[in-house]
Amino acid sequence: MKPNNDVGKEEYFWAKDRMPILSKIIKKYSNNQILSDINIGMCLHITKETSVLVMGLSGAGANIKLCAANPLSTKDSIRDFLVRSNIKVFANKSTEIDSFYSNMDKVLDIKPKIIVDDGGELHKKATARNLSSVGGTEETTSGVNRLKTLSQEGRLSYPVIAVNESIAKQLLDNRFGTGQSTIEGIINVTGVILAGKKIVICGYGWVGKGVAKCAKGMGAKVTLTEVDPIRAIEAFFDGYEVKVLEKVLPENDIFITCTGQTDVIGRDHFDKLKDGAILCNAGHFDVEVDVNYLKSLDPNHYEVKDKVTCYEIGNSRSKKRIYVLSEGRVINLVGAEGNSPEVMDISFSNQFLAIVYLLKNGYRLSHKVYKPPKKLDTKIARLVLDAYGLKIDTLTSKQAAYFTQ
Amino acid sequence: MKPNNDVGKEEYFWAKDRMPILSKIIKKYSNNQILSDINIGMCLHITKETSVLVMGLSGAGANIKLCAANPLSTKDSIRDFLVRSNIKVFANKSTEIDSFYSNMDKVLDIKPKIIVDDGGELHKKATARNLSSVGGTEETTSGVNRLKTLSQEGRLSYPVIAVNESIAKQLLDNRFGTGQSTIEGIINVTGVILAGKKIVICGYGWVGKGVAKCAKGMGAKVTLTEVDPIRAIEAFFDGYEVKVLEKVLPENDIFITCTGQTDVIGRDHFDKLKDGAILCNAGHFDVEVDVNYLKSLDPNHYEVKDKVTCYEIGNSRSKKRIYVLSEGRVINLVGAEGNSPEVMDISFSNQFLAIVYLLKNGYRLSHKVYKPPKKLDTKIARLVLDAYGLKIDTLTSKQAAYFTQ
Amino acid sequence: MKPNNDVGKEEYFWAKDRMPILSKIIKKYSNNQILSDINIGMCLHITKETSVLVMGLSGAGANIKLCAANPLSTKDSIRDFLVRSNIKVFANKSTEIDSFYSNMDKVLDIKPKIIVDDGGELHKKATARNLSSVGGTEETTSGVNRLKTLSQEGRLSYPVIAVNESIAKQLLDNRFGTGQSTIEGIINVTGVILAGKKIVICGYGWVGKGVAKCAKGMGAKVTLTEVDPIRAIEAFFDGYEVKVLEKVLPENDIFITCTGQTDVIGRDHFDKLKDGAILCNAGHFDVEVDVNYLKSLDPNHYEVKDKVTCYEIGNSRSKKRIYVLSEGRVINLVGAEGNSPEVMDISFSNQFLAIVYLLKNGYRLSHKVYKPPKKLDTKIARLVLDAYGLKIDTLTSKQAAYFTQ
Amino acid sequence: MKPNNDVGKEEYFWAKDRMPILSKIIKKYSNNQILSDINIGMCLHITKETSVLVMGLSGAGANIKLCAANPLSTKDSIRDFLVRSNIKVFANKSTEIDSFYSNMDKVLDIKPKIIVDDGGELHKKATARNLSSVGGTEETTSGVNRLKTLSQEGRLSYPVIAVNESIAKQLLDNRFGTGQSTIEGIINVTGVILAGKKIVICGYGWVGKGVAKCAKGMGAKVTLTEVDPIRAIEAFFDGYEVKVLEKVLPENDIFITCTGQTDVIGRDHFDKLKDGAILCNAGHFDVEVDVNYLKSLDPNHYEVKDKVTCYEIGNSRSKKRIYVLSEGRVINLVGAEGNSPEVMDISFSNQFLAIVYLLKNGYRLSHKVYKPPKKLDTKIARLVLDAYGLKIDTLTSKQAAYFTQ
Repeated sequence: MKPNNDVGKEEYFWAKDRMPILSKIIKKYSNNQILSDINIGMCLHITKETSVLVMGLSGAGANIKLCAANPLSTKDSIRDFLVRSNIKVFANKSTEIDSFYSNMDKVLDIKPKIIVDDGGELHKKATARNLSSVGGTEETTSGVNRLKTLSQEGRLSYPVIAVNESIAKQLLDNRFGTGQSTIEGIINVTGVILAGKKIVICGYGWVGKGVAKCAKGMGAKVTLTEVDPIRAIEAFFDGYEVKVLEKVLPENDIFITCTGQTDVIGRDHFDKLKDGAILCNAGHFDVEVDVNYLKSLDPNHYEVKDKVTCYEIGNSRSKKRIYVLSEGRVINLVGAEGNSPEVMDISFSNQFLAIVYLLKNGYRLSHKVYKPPKKLDTKIARLVLDAYGLKIDTLTSKQAAYFTQ
Repeated sequence: MKPNNDVGKEEYFWAKDRMPILSKIIKKYSNNQILSDINIGMCLHITKETSVLVMGLSGAGANIKLCAANPLSTKDSIRDFLVRSNIKVFANKSTEIDSFYSNMDKVLDIKPKIIVDDGGELHKKATARNLSSVGGTEETTSGVNRLKTLSQEGRLSYPVIAVNESIAKQLLDNRFGTGQSTIEGIINVTGVILAGKKIVICGYGWVGKGVAKCAKGMGAKVTLTEVDPIRAIEAFFDGYEVKVLEKVLPENDIFITCTGQTDVIGRDHFDKLKDGAILCNAGHFDVEVDVNYLKSLDPNHYEVKDKVTCYEIGNSRSKKRIYVLSEGRVINLVGAEGNSPEVMDISFSNQFLAIVYLLKNGYRLSHKVYKPPKKLDTKIARLVLDAYGLKIDTLTSKQAAYFTQ
Repeated sequence: MKPNNDVGKEEYFWAKDRMPILSKIIKKYSNNQILSDINIGMCLHITKETSVLVMGLSGAGANIKLCAANPLSTKDSIRDFLVRSNIKVFANKSTEIDSFYSNMDKVLDIKPKIIVDDGGELHKKATARNLSSVGGTEETTSGVNRLKTLSQEGRLSYPVIAVNESIAKQLLDNRFGTGQSTIEGIINVTGVILAGKKIVICGYGWVGKGVAKCAKGMGAKVTLTEVDPIRAIEAFFDGYEVKVLEKVLPENDIFITCTGQTDVIGRDHFDKLKDGAILCNAGHFDVEVDVNYLKSLDPNHYEVKDKVTCYEIGNSRSKKRIYVLSEGRVINLVGAEGNSPEVMDISFSNQFLAIVYLLKNGYRLSHKVYKPPKKLDTKIARLVLDAYGLKIDTLTSKQAAYFTQ
Repeated sequence: MKPNNDVGKEEYFWAKDRMPILSKIIKKYSNNQILSDINIGMCLHITKETSVLVMGLSGAGANIKLCAANPLSTKDSIRDFLVRSNIKVFANKSTEIDSFYSNMDKVLDIKPKIIVDDGGELHKKATARNLSSVGGTEETTSGVNRLKTLSQEGRLSYPVIAVNESIAKQLLDNRFGTGQSTIEGIINVTGVILAGKKIVICGYGWVGKGVAKCAKGMGAKVTLTEVDPIRAIEAFFDGYEVKVLEKVLPENDIFITCTGQTDVIGRDHFDKLKDGAILCNAGHFDVEVDVNYLKSLDPNHYEVKDKVTCYEIGNSRSKKRIYVLSEGRVINLVGAEGNSPEVMDISFSNQFLAIVYLLKNGYRLSHKVYKPPKKLDTKIARLVLDAYGLKIDTLTSKQAAYFTQ
């Protein structure tokens, strides 16, 4: 067997082979150098899939500056591969996390025409600087929510396309992608069996839907909590128990937050949990479980195994161990290998097409958050059908005329 | 045991007991006689659930004139009960179907302030008469599509609320309601077992989703056909096979059309079906399977059992029997008892609240098709949670503020 | 369209076309008249599928005498068709149920060589008469349990094959067949929607498994009760809630007994049910719900709709209505059309092959209850694969040798 | 946060906390030192769960000698912990695999009264030495099959309890346990998304059932291959496609062997696979995929990423890459962390109780392979119910008498 000298490069190729849609797009736009000399500032999780997008944009002519959306998610082998490939990467080793924000500043120093972000932090900084880019894209729901607020306050300094709201992305990435990778993260980190486990999922948005489906698919007993009545009845009719969080704290084994909210499990909840309960978060930010409060309860908390922190709370007569995974950071990226190449294929294909779209149309757009245009959705959907070898019917002319009768 | 002398009345009470949301609404508005002397023209399937809505509107003061949305779906016992209760019903016995359209005219003769329809035929007639009502409601997707065309052509003479597009209705009625009642209709009429059967569902809208879920839940092997690429990938990732109709004709046992389209299974398809294939329709109109063409192929077609017509096609050397259920009319209403009271509870609660909304706001609306206002959706969703004994969380003030950070 | 003059005959043909396995067996044994002049006494539900078995046995030369396993399940059109076909049927109209037991005596008067039963009543009578037949077959689990007791007491007067314990039958008939037809029966009789309903299934044997699977497949929330710890953990790991009956009485909508036991829901339980609860039974005998006790509580009970009896219990201050379906008789046969032809195809193919087997081997068997021999199981399984167009692999000679290494 | 100095010990405690049933048994038998001075020879995967069993047996007085069932599955931290705890472990570092068989000899040198094995190799050696132990236990189906052959040939030198055939073990370990850990292994090693993937599972025994259920639960399209017609129809009616392996080679993405057989995917199959196909094995031995033949086709095969070997086959004009996971060794133990503590809890509780049973009863048993006695099954099932907080009903005395009527 041959030895493997360039891990990052092999990972890039393995990912690229599993991203047929993006590969097709890259090939097309490399030929016509559509991004020639365009400055693009990017803040993404530095993974093998990201390397395919970055190398592709670069190959189509763009000047990229890249920083890390989350210092803990940086794959050092990929960072090294990108650096060797002459991409300007402002990201330290995954173990050195100090210069997180200053790296963003370095990315913005090139005054990028396009700003690609995952979480909204880079957009926030760009807006604070009043940077007038042609446009931006945002990968996460959490980020989009923040940008919408900025937009309502008239503070957004360029239009942003919420790549996240592409229908294909929502179907695949947010639902099945994050669903699988969250479950994978939990199993990886804890090694517990899910069959028979009682699991609470907080939030029934796209992410919660995916996590719930996979958890149930692995044999868990799933209960949902929600604050939105429409989502609540949807969860109920999709087959789940729907309950108030406070009532389900004592009897469940695992809690997964998927809300985009803060303090979903917080100071009012910890002492109602059962001994041995496991808490983790699948939302973008690490605020959904109030880990800081837990730390204040048990300053002597310790790691039982990699990425499993044990907090002993309660008094001497009744002590409970509460386990938090990945310090409450998004479990699917930190605990496991992150989203699969197939999922990121759709997501990053959206990114690429949205960038091209913004370069053509950004000047006429308002400084607001936009959904991806419908025709872009349809374009991606047809590419997905191709990639999975599926064929569908077309309306006959008689049928096309039928609705207008 | 006591004998039952008034079947229609007992059916009305059984249904009303299973419609807790509508009952609550009726109670509230009967007290204040909100519909006092309002003329309402209605075209609905005359079922026990409809009788609860009609009696409720009448109890709140309205003058109702009612005709049948489909002559074959009229329950005679309910028609008789409504007539005895002094509701003006223009519907013949279910066996006499001649005066279908003239009954609509009689309903419109009162110049109704509100027009309630299921299928769009009554609205079409009202618009042709250029009737200037305060507003209308429409129950079906098929009807809504037609009204949107009328609206685009500037021919709609009053605003219409597409009750069908209420989120709660889509979740329950179109998905689970029609799903269950379609499967029930097929089982009822044919008595075949679904486990192991190969079933093709044409169309993955709300109805198709519900039918697919129930068919799979009963053990069938389900394949979807679609013309929309986004719906196609959704079906695929929801776990179904997605194929081109022509390819799946020879190998499947049962075909269910749920498209709102015409000639979905038509002259190009019949001779590719396998001997013994069963065809039926869950869409509103009986045009999805081209039954007329089948009749021309076999003028001697006959009923094998109630609502199962056998068409023998092909030549003398190779003869095939193709079975069509309910003559291609909507199987869930004709074959079975129709939608369940629980489903119609939500649907008709939407109807009632939409009528009240139109009386207050109709004058300021354009002559277009409107979705139900968001607050009406939320109102219904909360009523559903109540009815199923579910409680959900509320945002803390810190959380409510979080998104605007 | 042609009129249909001979309903029973059309039903027989429709069923026969959906019973390809039995049809193949019938064809083979009609040619060699294997049952020539053999007296067969039968006690079965008189349905269209039964007519295919009876006509087939008769066609292979047998003299049949047939009575009804349940007077309420007799289809008059089929009874008439069989009589017209010169089969000796001792079954009154479905409305005249008085001579149930005396009809069994008439069947036994021919001193049948083979006794085919569904419930064990005929075997019990035959054993009481000390009838020395060559052998018998029994269709139900309940019947088999009774026969095993008779056998242990040394009272069984001939060997019996428990057709029910054929693996193919258990997979299809008891699981999917009874599952679907029970759900169908409930929907048919009540018209309630299952999505969102809270349903308790008592017993997780084959029937309970099938009912649970279908109920869940239709969107219900399913809880199991059991007395056997191994079945209980199987239910739990199959994804269901497992609870004690008494605890779940107040909060559930529908209860389905599938135990083969008596008084599963009885005098200790009724007053803990919620108002409007629906009770029904999928077990063979009508003893699982203690209907007699309910009758004593409310002598004025009445039928709300066909096959739905309402019992008003409690005192004047707190009255509850408890609904019992089909008077506690097996809901899948009485409420709906009974088991599907596809399911009965396997079941009755087993019956036919077991009869042939008994004629050849019965003389050497003890007076015990036997499982169907393994080779009969494999024979049926291969016929099922054929019927569904499935092909499977075969071991290579290297593989066949591998286990014996 | 505290540092963690003794990884193996922490892992032992984390596992023990998740093995409540075994912990209860250990506590009971430690008190009475039931295994005082009993020599036990063991060949198991050296994992944290195994350390709980081994420490427990040792704590109850036994003298243990332990070797590794698979050199690649040895966790060094656990090996070190056991050695530090004075257990005699004959297992090299996971990277040094040479003395696999000689380690078994060392274990047998103590002439163990009880022999505990996982795979049958140790029993084979013990039998070759004609060792007359009181009895043995065997963990795997593959091992049991081999021992049955030895027994038929009269060569087994002591009775063996097939722990694997405990009903509780089959329900949990073989089905959900191996199911989850196989899926986890594949995701871990490859990082591919399962939703939408076409997966073939060879074999529908307990392991195949579990893998199929989890794969489907994660959104994959699952096809089964079988050689047994009864299992084939069960797979079909459980909702899977059933096909001949040869036909499904070109169109599927991932193949998982679960048969206990040899050469399931072998020289006749590789060139029919599609480019990029992934092969892996969930059966005990690494003979199910013929990796040796693949190596002969591509002597230059290389590791793309950890545990993913790429074989390039075909000629220069048409080259295909076939990926094999973990060199065809059992993916759930090598690729992932192995079975979960919860699953091993049941499995090793069976082991412990079987050992105690053999010490009491082994002398009267024949030299055959035995299923665990029924009362042991029931005992475990009740312990499982306890562990999951479930309560079940009990028969009333009337009901207990009912079957004997």
